[in-house]
Amino acid sequence: MKIIVDAMGGDNAPVSNVRGALAAVRELGVEVLLVGRGEEILKVLKEDGIDQLPQGLEIVHASEVVEMCDNPATAFREKKDSSLTVGLNLLKNGDGDAFVSAGSTGALLSAATLMVKRVRGIRRAALAPVVPTGAGGAVLIDCGATAECTPEYLLQFAFMGSYYAERVLKRPEPKVGLLNIGAEPSKGTDLQREAHALLTAADKAGRIRFVGNVEAREAVYGEVDVIVSDGYSGNIFLKTMEGTGGFMAKQLKAMFKKNALTKLAAVLVSGGLKQFKKMMDAGEVGGTALLGISRPVIKAHGSSDDFAIKNAIRQAQSFASSGIIEDIVENIEHMRLSTEKVEKI
Amino acid sequence: MKIIVDAMGGDNAPVSNVRGALAAVRELGVEVLLVGRGEEILKVLKEDGIDQLPQGLEIVHASEVVEMCDNPATAFREKKDSSLTVGLNLLKNGDGDAFVSAGSTGALLSAATLMVKRVRGIRRAALAPVVPTGAGGAVLIDCGATAECTPEYLLQFAFMGSYYAERVLKRPEPKVGLLNIGAEPSKGTDLQREAHALLTAADKAGRIRFVGNVEAREAVYGEVDVIVSDGYSGNIFLKTMEGTGGFMAKQLKAMFKKNALTKLAAVLVSGGLKQFKKMMDAGEVGGTALLGISRPVIKAHGSSDDFAIKNAIRQAQSFASSGIIEDIVENIEHMRLSTEKVEKI
Repeated sequence: MKIIVDAMGGDNAPVSNVRGALAAVRELGVEVLLVGRGEEILKVLKEDGIDQLPQGLEIVHASEVVEMCDNPATAFREKKDSSLTVGLNLLKNGDGDAFVSAGSTGALLSAATLMVKRVRGIRRAALAPVVPTGAGGAVLIDCGATAECTPEYLLQFAFMGSYYAERVLKRPEPKVGLLNIGAEPSKGTDLQREAHALLTAADKAGRIRFVGNVEAREAVYGEVDVIVSDGYSGNIFLKTMEGTGGFMAKQLKAMFKKNALTKLAAVLVSGGLKQFKKMMDAGEVGGTALLGISRPVIKAHGSSDDFAIKNAIRQAQSFASSGIIEDIVENIEHMRLSTEKVEKI
Repeated sequence: MKIIVDAMGGDNAPVSNVRGALAAVRELGVEVLLVGRGEEILKVLKEDGIDQLPQGLEIVHASEVVEMCDNPATAFREKKDSSLTVGLNLLKNGDGDAFVSAGSTGALLSAATLMVKRVRGIRRAALAPVVPTGAGGAVLIDCGATAECTPEYLLQFAFMGSYYAERVLKRPEPKVGLLNIGAEPSKGTDLQREAHALLTAADKAGRIRFVGNVEAREAVYGEVDVIVSDGYSGNIFLKTMEGTGGFMAKQLKAMFKKNALTKLAAVLVSGGLKQFKKMMDAGEVGGTALLGISRPVIKAHGSSDDFAIKNAIRQAQSFASSGIIEDIVENIEHMRLSTEKVEKI
């Protein structure tokens, strides 16, 4: 298995990208194609005392870098020799099994959609992070790729999220919930009400296991394995979770740092605190799958360190060998509304 | 000042409602009209060793109770002698200065809107809780009264939230942010883009201090004093916050309960933990203001205990003496779109 890694994207690029890739090659049994400025990549390796490219690690030179200030919709076209464009071309041409980038989410989404293309019949690609929950995590789909959705998009998200939860998170018959502001089918806006009907029908046909609406609080507690949402609300959910987690962690830190006794307390619960941190840590998961694209693409967090990059590569490996894209292709007819159905809704 | 309290609404009614009212009379210098089943109210007082009604506490008998299973839209009409209907009639007739209920939110919202009426020109009433943030709390408006909104509703929410933050939270020139999935004015859906333009114009006219879009994470950190949102997204924001807070608190509790040493740690940081709990505790705030109604209405949390009811009464007192409703009435022309403007948008 060969993973293509954007060496230049992210806050800690290329250092963390190179180190993470190296760790992945050594520990995960994958090959990595590092795409970016060759001299900069070699410099990182040299500084780490590596003079010869290790077995399994290749460099593909790309002279340009897509920056956060570039227009996300057009950056990949304007910078044809960017690590993003070169890397996605490699993926498209079958020179690697998956692509990982910690660069601009918008640019990655546009480039993947327009270069690698969506699975035929999929209306919109979706960002599907695994969020920490009381039940060991759930797939949130979508969290911001498409702010405004139709009921059909949500139906497709439900199928794709369900396959991901089953194949990657290893949840047999994953419970799919529709993020909403109440449990009753009548709750929410027209979008949720119409999506509820579509998901109920898909459940009745035995294609997914739809357990109904799920409120944000219960979603955090871990009531479902897949949280289906339009990109706008999904983003609010994700960012509120991150914000509240960060805010509480900061308060806790201040509490433990107060004086000698509280510092002693921190030592006494240090094992638990570490576990707690691990559970809330985005780096543990690695990255966010971009579902609906015809080949596996993983968006690593912009602030990824070596460890997070390695985990994103692990996730890409798992995604590429999972068979999810095959699942989507095979079942695409069940995820589409016929024109007649669309008109009725 | 006389506060009308629904003695029968909420999980701990009538016990906590009666006790909270009693505490308010004793500690806050308000009079309270307790509305509900007279014999049940007297029984609670008697069990607490009170045989004579204390000065400042009156009982208004109402034989019926609006239950959670009643149709929220029609309950107040079907149960004309319910504590909700009788209490809101007292408010409407000027027999009290504010109304507090811990009963069904939907029933309270419908009843207040249809019986007490909105301020003339206000299109929708909004639920405006004060949520804990890194800056000591912010007004979230709306959090679920109106799932689907127009840009004009959001404009009105911004004005009302701003008055509330200024008058009740004592924030001079409160910073108003529009909840969104990115900082740029182009982010979000049409609703946010159009609302952004309206709020920018209101800021330029010097009527509110609009600081632009605010992402959910930054909203939690305390970047703004007022978080403007449609009811659907606001509810997702609020419930995700509650869920994440509750989830983390549970993990912490388990961490401290693990063994004798971790229990000792809990003792060492007990002061900090108390403060932490206080900060995250909904009971501290008391309740959620229903803004846009022509008289002050406070929704107390359904699970309110004595302490939370007392605090909701304190909040009602503060609301009633704040002059917010007068602010809204005086400035209503600036919160409305003329027909011409509506067509342009």
